[in-house]
Amino acid sequence: VSVRLLESLATTEELAAAFGDEAVLEGMLRFEAALARAQAPTGLAPASTAEAIASVSAGMFDRAAIVQGARDSGTIAIAFVSALTARVKATDPAAADAVHRGATSQDLTDTALALCLRTAGAILTRDHQRLSRALRFLSERHRDTVMLARTLLQPAAPTTFGLKAAQWYAGIAHAHEGVSRAFADAAVLQLGGPVGTLAAFGEHGDNIARAMAAELDLAWPGVPWHTERGRFAALAGACATYMGALAKIARDVALLMQAEVSEASEPGGGSSSMPHKRNPAGCAVILAAAARVPGLASSCFSGLANEHERGVGGWHAEALTISEIVQTTGSALAAAANLAEHLSVDEDRMRRNLETFRGVVFPEGGRPEDCLGSAELFRRRLLGDDKR
Amino acid sequence: VSVRLLESLATTEELAAAFGDEAVLEGMLRFEAALARAQAPTGLAPASTAEAIASVSAGMFDRAAIVQGARDSGTIAIAFVSALTARVKATDPAAADAVHRGATSQDLTDTALALCLRTAGAILTRDHQRLSRALRFLSERHRDTVMLARTLLQPAAPTTFGLKAAQWYAGIAHAHEGVSRAFADAAVLQLGGPVGTLAAFGEHGDNIARAMAAELDLAWPGVPWHTERGRFAALAGACATYMGALAKIARDVALLMQAEVSEASEPGGGSSSMPHKRNPAGCAVILAAAARVPGLASSCFSGLANEHERGVGGWHAEALTISEIVQTTGSALAAAANLAEHLSVDEDRMRRNLETFRGVVFPEGGRPEDCLGSAELFRRRLLGDDKR
Amino acid sequence: VSVRLLESLATTEELAAAFGDEAVLEGMLRFEAALARAQAPTGLAPASTAEAIASVSAGMFDRAAIVQGARDSGTIAIAFVSALTARVKATDPAAADAVHRGATSQDLTDTALALCLRTAGAILTRDHQRLSRALRFLSERHRDTVMLARTLLQPAAPTTFGLKAAQWYAGIAHAHEGVSRAFADAAVLQLGGPVGTLAAFGEHGDNIARAMAAELDLAWPGVPWHTERGRFAALAGACATYMGALAKIARDVALLMQAEVSEASEPGGGSSSMPHKRNPAGCAVILAAAARVPGLASSCFSGLANEHERGVGGWHAEALTISEIVQTTGSALAAAANLAEHLSVDEDRMRRNLETFRGVVFPEGGRPEDCLGSAELFRRRLLGDDKR
Amino acid sequence: VSVRLLESLATTEELAAAFGDEAVLEGMLRFEAALARAQAPTGLAPASTAEAIASVSAGMFDRAAIVQGARDSGTIAIAFVSALTARVKATDPAAADAVHRGATSQDLTDTALALCLRTAGAILTRDHQRLSRALRFLSERHRDTVMLARTLLQPAAPTTFGLKAAQWYAGIAHAHEGVSRAFADAAVLQLGGPVGTLAAFGEHGDNIARAMAAELDLAWPGVPWHTERGRFAALAGACATYMGALAKIARDVALLMQAEVSEASEPGGGSSSMPHKRNPAGCAVILAAAARVPGLASSCFSGLANEHERGVGGWHAEALTISEIVQTTGSALAAAANLAEHLSVDEDRMRRNLETFRGVVFPEGGRPEDCLGSAELFRRRLLGDDKR
Repeated sequence: VSVRLLESLATTEELAAAFGDEAVLEGMLRFEAALARAQAPTGLAPASTAEAIASVSAGMFDRAAIVQGARDSGTIAIAFVSALTARVKATDPAAADAVHRGATSQDLTDTALALCLRTAGAILTRDHQRLSRALRFLSERHRDTVMLARTLLQPAAPTTFGLKAAQWYAGIAHAHEGVSRAFADAAVLQLGGPVGTLAAFGEHGDNIARAMAAELDLAWPGVPWHTERGRFAALAGACATYMGALAKIARDVALLMQAEVSEASEPGGGSSSMPHKRNPAGCAVILAAAARVPGLASSCFSGLANEHERGVGGWHAEALTISEIVQTTGSALAAAANLAEHLSVDEDRMRRNLETFRGVVFPEGGRPEDCLGSAELFRRRLLGDDKR
Repeated sequence: VSVRLLESLATTEELAAAFGDEAVLEGMLRFEAALARAQAPTGLAPASTAEAIASVSAGMFDRAAIVQGARDSGTIAIAFVSALTARVKATDPAAADAVHRGATSQDLTDTALALCLRTAGAILTRDHQRLSRALRFLSERHRDTVMLARTLLQPAAPTTFGLKAAQWYAGIAHAHEGVSRAFADAAVLQLGGPVGTLAAFGEHGDNIARAMAAELDLAWPGVPWHTERGRFAALAGACATYMGALAKIARDVALLMQAEVSEASEPGGGSSSMPHKRNPAGCAVILAAAARVPGLASSCFSGLANEHERGVGGWHAEALTISEIVQTTGSALAAAANLAEHLSVDEDRMRRNLETFRGVVFPEGGRPEDCLGSAELFRRRLLGDDKR
Repeated sequence: VSVRLLESLATTEELAAAFGDEAVLEGMLRFEAALARAQAPTGLAPASTAEAIASVSAGMFDRAAIVQGARDSGTIAIAFVSALTARVKATDPAAADAVHRGATSQDLTDTALALCLRTAGAILTRDHQRLSRALRFLSERHRDTVMLARTLLQPAAPTTFGLKAAQWYAGIAHAHEGVSRAFADAAVLQLGGPVGTLAAFGEHGDNIARAMAAELDLAWPGVPWHTERGRFAALAGACATYMGALAKIARDVALLMQAEVSEASEPGGGSSSMPHKRNPAGCAVILAAAARVPGLASSCFSGLANEHERGVGGWHAEALTISEIVQTTGSALAAAANLAEHLSVDEDRMRRNLETFRGVVFPEGGRPEDCLGSAELFRRRLLGDDKR
Repeated sequence: VSVRLLESLATTEELAAAFGDEAVLEGMLRFEAALARAQAPTGLAPASTAEAIASVSAGMFDRAAIVQGARDSGTIAIAFVSALTARVKATDPAAADAVHRGATSQDLTDTALALCLRTAGAILTRDHQRLSRALRFLSERHRDTVMLARTLLQPAAPTTFGLKAAQWYAGIAHAHEGVSRAFADAAVLQLGGPVGTLAAFGEHGDNIARAMAAELDLAWPGVPWHTERGRFAALAGACATYMGALAKIARDVALLMQAEVSEASEPGGGSSSMPHKRNPAGCAVILAAAARVPGLASSCFSGLANEHERGVGGWHAEALTISEIVQTTGSALAAAANLAEHLSVDEDRMRRNLETFRGVVFPEGGRPEDCLGSAELFRRRLLGDDKR
């Protein structure tokens, strides 16, 4: 089991795995192998180093020792590199000297994080597409389903459920542009050496970086970015914005599902004390995530003022915080996709609720259907079907 | 005076004015005039309404009454519209009926905020350019100024001050892309009517919106966005990321300015108790802003889950919070531009400090100049002078 | 007008005044007068200095110049002291030398903030008592008003409105203990001199501090606290906790006021587009505040790591942030008191809603009244009427 | 291994265990056993139920199934209760019916969290005492060690290292009062049944709660607190304040440890690329934690507005967030205790640095020793040795 009981609502099995120990160790191993391989043609490292590293697997490491090493040195990199070097030395003493040559801890951990983020980003994209499809389907199906629009939780005027679902769709679609861009920007190699000059590689620095990036299928931004952590901050902000769009859906559904309203309901869950009860459990998962992400994003922003060529503390917490933001957002997204795919909509009740408040909603007369024209125009635009 | 004593460090005169009462009232007046003018050709409002509104000026409003009205109704729009209507009625009773016709409070206040943000965005862009120029100048001038790179606040290896300044430059340049995009995305008209369907305008809704947008020089996104507040969240996140890039500069300068280091110093300020003392006051302004913006951004993210067609509370705080984020970031930016334009750099001291720690920095020999090659390559790339 | 349009929902006239320019200037003047007076017996300052300062009033200062001074030096203190000294010099040159003697900027601004907080704290306490009384009254009056309890927004089982109101009461009562304690802890003199040693006063330091504290009616904690900002952080945390208790009330009321539920309604406000509509405007004010305070509190916490004997930036933003936290919480509190005093409760509708869901709520039979016994016991305990 | 690589700096082995799956399961088992045992004398449950529960151990549960159950229902309680009931049924079918009788999910999970917090609180108290002792020792030893006080990172005037250490001591001592109080307040039983009325227990509710509290060594607050989450918010605020006091120490030490200053150094850690380098790794752990806790605390505050008798989402994230706040603070505290116990102080260098800036610090003459009198008075007060 990789998900803990207390974090049940804040991640999923696959997202927890994307940032789990094995993924992190694999990422670090891939970095070191690529680093050695890229140096071989330059003569800076023997070809055997890359081979020796390639024969080491994540399962071979004493993870508790690496954790302890991180507490002693501020980074998991040092104990990892030293264990890796020892392992290489055991099979090929000549190859050991060149392990991690020219790189610094942050090169290793930042690149490993970039690799984890790529895996996680793909999961979020997949679930975003599921959610998008489900919302589009709801919107199409209910393009003529007239219902009560509510402002400040009071009956206001008629709208359609098709328009409401299209607004949910557009909310996540717009926010996802930011998320996509941020994940793409974060899929970059880190390579700078001790102080971000790649001095140890002499004239070969740029070529080594290119070769590594190609092997790891990451971009090489042309420069190290040890203290330029804007990529992660932008990702935090984009996820927090996306999270807000999911939370809007969940809040609406939880309100529509109230027994007194009963216009829609999600699959939901039971109760330990009242077996007859059906709870908006999917909404709870999403709204719980929404309570967490804004604060986590602010932590990322707070850590940006890193001192000189590598800061003390600001960035040290970043990988954990970013991984939590992505997992929490992704957990809410998975719940939202499930919710949207199984949302049941009660058209009759929508119509009846509207009739009940006819006196409030149409003080000067009017018919529910009067809203259909403009609602449909906007609905199609929100779905992107009508170019503006 | 528009800036209060307690907020001295968190805004500037011109940014405070951009979000001040007069600007907000002007924005609301422009919205109402544009709304009436756009309706005239459709016959929904008489041409006289727009004219009558155009003759009203911001100074004519009882601002205390509008503030009180906001506490009673949750929005400044209602008391404003009612005062405006009364004023129009006094000169042209027939024109009064059509004031605010078809629109809702949020149309008015969101559009007014968009107009304020455009003004503020231009200020930030101007100061960003000042800061960019100053940093580029520093980087060029000191391309060969060798200095100690420090990681975790310890001497690490040689670098150049040119590279350090280029990293500052790239930090804000990269972050500014996000800020620019977010300000552009926020320069949009809001128009949806009571529940976001523009039902009251019948077939004319879209044309009215287009005409208004053209007059106000805002974009019309094709749909209302009453509950899709992602634009503001994205702006909050982008400002917070940019703020982090400014804070990094301030922290570095404050550290370089320590008497024990003395490699650079900013104009600074005095002390009330120690006249001989010169303080990094610009850094203090920037770092004070950096303590505020992440939390403010999280407030924006927290407010996104708005109920149904207009939420209760979530978005009600947004205009204030967004205005504070922009003002605080802009205040720091102004201080940073000033700091960078007047930063004095002590090349001799940089060289001397490097020599002092030669034993630490070059345990196996080596010369400071060894870093120049790769430092220069990266420096030029960071400035965008060398395509990667 | 002291409240700006954009901050209408985030403060009140009297709270804005408590932290307004005049209050801040008055506080600083009182500090300087007390400082001079306390030094007179020791011979460190002539008696005339205190008298000269006492003749200066807040209105005499060029506030724009002080704001500009703050941007130049990081603090409003320097320009203030220099203007005050000039003014004293004009009437009594001999007295001018001793103005601010032995003190530092932070002594002045921290003490002025403490004085502002005392004023604000009294306002919050008064409104807390109003709200408490109103909730107690509601709870007593509705001790037998049976209604539907709802969990996860679903009908669950019967409860009483008296118990619900008592839970609201206990929520703020418990949180107010923390707020009270924090305001009391913050009502302290700051006096440390340049580096927190009071060295300039020789053996008189402690006596001067005691005398000043007595005159200003503040506590003297026995030591300066320039870099120990825990008092403000604790106040931020206590306000955020109290804010949460207010938000819980507002959320419940907004939900009860839904037309489909209609069990209670607040005075509310109108709509700019739908005159027939009554909105939960008080709830909107409270929930808007609730979106702001958590982020502002995190800003306070983020600023605590101040360097050495006076930090760069961390604490510089604190006075503004604290003043916003207190004003925003106080604004919500004032709205909540108003809401509770005018809440109308529909007992019949409560009973009817309960009957409607009888099949859900009593799957195995049972009567609404079965809840009365334990509900009443807990209700009385929550009100503090039954010792546990 | 219970600590993951990415969270190495944000917890310790023992703190991770305090909130780990086993601890949570144990806590839930203890709750259910106590609940059954307390009901036996009333006849509501057979004595055999408690016995049967007591024979179940944490290791018997399928944790993955409980995690999945939480995603389906919003809480780990339902799948846990159902697995427990099945297990009891297997050995004693008659006993199974009474498992969890009268309680609700939140009773179970809140009480389990209270039990976890008690364990964690004891760990924090122990480490706080270690840190306090070490700081007191440093302060005593260096009562006469004159050094440069620095304000805004500039040389200001003389102070003693004894006074600086005493300020660190007082910072955590003051903040710890809040932490202690908050942990004590959180050590309470939750028991309310489905809607917080304990209706199912008839007249026995209070006695059952008392008996359970006694068995679990928790307080019974006399009432359920399903929606009154102020205890956790207060704990979050107290931890964030304490975290700030730790961060202040770390920032000071990292600055003192700069090679250019060299007045103190912590045990520190190495570098993966520069074997000669010694990094302030303890400071990095502490400052990384300081970047996380403020945002996490704001998440707690954001979740307080829970709907009616049990909210949707607000509180669902709370247990995880609180556990992270406590672990992160505790991780920093453990690092700080270690740092303080091993801090090496260079008195000669302190003296020399002071001499270097004599011209700046004593513009009008004066001797370093002039500060000793008042510094010593304040030092003793800060340590609590001199009653104020």
